Amino acid sequence: MMIPAPYLLYLGHSTDAVGIKTSRGLAAFRPQDCVGEFRYDDCPLTVGMPRMTIAEGAAAGAKTLVLGIANSGGTLGRDLVDDAVAALEAGMNVASGLHQRLRDQPLLAALAREKGLQLFDVRDPPADLKVGNGNKRAGHRLLTVGTDCSVGKMYTTLALAQGMQARGIKADFRATGQTGILIAGGGVPIDAVVADFISGGIEQLAPARDDDGWDLIEGQGSLFHPSFAGVSTGLLHGAQPEAIVMCHDPNRLHMRGIPGRALPDLGECIEMNLAVARLTSPDVRTVGICLNTSVMDAAEARALCARTADRYGLPCTDPIAFGVDAILDQLLCPVPSARSTIASR
Amino acid sequence: MMIPAPYLLYLGHSTDAVGIKTSRGLAAFRPQDCVGEFRYDDCPLTVGMPRMTIAEGAAAGAKTLVLGIANSGGTLGRDLVDDAVAALEAGMNVASGLHQRLRDQPLLAALAREKGLQLFDVRDPPADLKVGNGNKRAGHRLLTVGTDCSVGKMYTTLALAQGMQARGIKADFRATGQTGILIAGGGVPIDAVVADFISGGIEQLAPARDDDGWDLIEGQGSLFHPSFAGVSTGLLHGAQPEAIVMCHDPNRLHMRGIPGRALPDLGECIEMNLAVARLTSPDVRTVGICLNTSVMDAAEARALCARTADRYGLPCTDPIAFGVDAILDQLLCPVPSARSTIASR
Repeated sequence: MMIPAPYLLYLGHSTDAVGIKTSRGLAAFRPQDCVGEFRYDDCPLTVGMPRMTIAEGAAAGAKTLVLGIANSGGTLGRDLVDDAVAALEAGMNVASGLHQRLRDQPLLAALAREKGLQLFDVRDPPADLKVGNGNKRAGHRLLTVGTDCSVGKMYTTLALAQGMQARGIKADFRATGQTGILIAGGGVPIDAVVADFISGGIEQLAPARDDDGWDLIEGQGSLFHPSFAGVSTGLLHGAQPEAIVMCHDPNRLHMRGIPGRALPDLGECIEMNLAVARLTSPDVRTVGICLNTSVMDAAEARALCARTADRYGLPCTDPIAFGVDAILDQLLCPVPSARSTIASR
Repeated sequence: MMIPAPYLLYLGHSTDAVGIKTSRGLAAFRPQDCVGEFRYDDCPLTVGMPRMTIAEGAAAGAKTLVLGIANSGGTLGRDLVDDAVAALEAGMNVASGLHQRLRDQPLLAALAREKGLQLFDVRDPPADLKVGNGNKRAGHRLLTVGTDCSVGKMYTTLALAQGMQARGIKADFRATGQTGILIAGGGVPIDAVVADFISGGIEQLAPARDDDGWDLIEGQGSLFHPSFAGVSTGLLHGAQPEAIVMCHDPNRLHMRGIPGRALPDLGECIEMNLAVARLTSPDVRTVGICLNTSVMDAAEARALCARTADRYGLPCTDPIAFGVDAILDQLLCPVPSARSTIASR
């Protein structure tokens, strides 16, 4: 799936900072491929790109309008269709990661055909997926998991991939969501596959490898999110990870989209993820905790990471603010056990 | 979805007794709507119906050929297409519960159109499902769960519904699989919905009710099956059950479709199901264990049920051989606690 760059990033009428994560992710990880952002006056958000109208974006060379917003259920509302029409009229392709497909909108399909432009539905799962089998396969795999949706699993996974590559280790980011797929240029939109194929889709995304490299698999949802835990469960089983990293937003007030539902305790969440993962990866271990501390000041964030690390006996960091070296050390350079440490004194 | 009866039940070349469960379920629970079974000479199985060719089935009045076989992945092979063609040529509609759709076979679609006949893809999920929310809703709901796929969850659920109805209690069987949907005439094929909508699909199948009646929800898969545990997880969360019944086949040698993978310990499986279910139903309890003892003699089966009941402190039965009264008693007539029992002596 080659989506012609550069991109105009759509924010529309969004008022939810988490909901624009696809546009934000592209701005953060592929800035060289983005010309600007499109938003209405009632949108208080920005991804830090120059604000442009559709016409200005086209004039600046944008080849594709990316509807980089996510809503629970992935619906394609009338306002989005209207703006996609405007982009096509201006000569741009349109890409979307919503569940409802651009190509299923007769107006858009007809207009794209007429203009010779393309509609990209990033959340289309691959055809002919097989069901998973959980049989042991070769290779090093790490999966990011979370206490909730949208707590930084993709950012963490990308940071770990970059960190490994910087150490000269082969590492591939394996995308499972619309944003990750747009950033990586490929992947399996695991929340959009038919339910029977969740673990099988991940087995296909990260097949056996024997080159000592790592597959760093982007997690989705949370075992404690009542909307999406099925996806998270199949992902754990399909990933067959030798290591997991727990991601958490310490400032989240309730489970995403469900006012009144508290986030799980971090320790309980780690234990549950390990318990589920053991079905296909009996020796799975946790190698770190990543916190999204973007709204905290640096001293406060560092103190929270230190307290969390102490409490759980695991490296804890904000991957964007403080990097992921401590986690990579834990993963790649096992500390001698207490016994051998004592013996060597 | 009204599929014209009576049915000719397809066994084809099947050699796997578990794989013909849809044909078997219709023969068992809707015998008045079935005229016979169609199978090749290499098929050693029967569902106890008169064996008929396609032509004989049509002559006996069959209005629909039901491709009542299941295979992992739900593929529609060439032999099935050929036999569906023969049925259409003979004037019958065709129904299928496989993942691959009849209507996506151009040959079948064209022939059905030409003949004025219908193709029924039972595994088509409803359009416009919403994501689940896990919010507490009114009503009594019971979910059957299992140590593996195809261990008797549907039979158990149907038996519980019939047992409740016999006691004058309002009880509705809520189908989640192809066989159940064919038997009930409706339901949500939960293994075929898009992964994000598993729990939401069940919330829609068994919405809030305040008539003191019960929704008896057919379970799918197993939390310990590496192919399908995501479906089972979403089902538990969406069902929000106040009670679960654990189903098990004591003679199963390995997890279905995965030679070498042992079944989980029954007690561990019960605990894991309760742990997952508590996310949306904190007070969930187990009210019984159902064993499929169909290959055992009656004395042996009774002894096994008694031993299992003793070991787990729960009613244990084979719902087909011995009924479900003990489980209904446990569910509906709570035993006084030990303390009040002593006090009343």
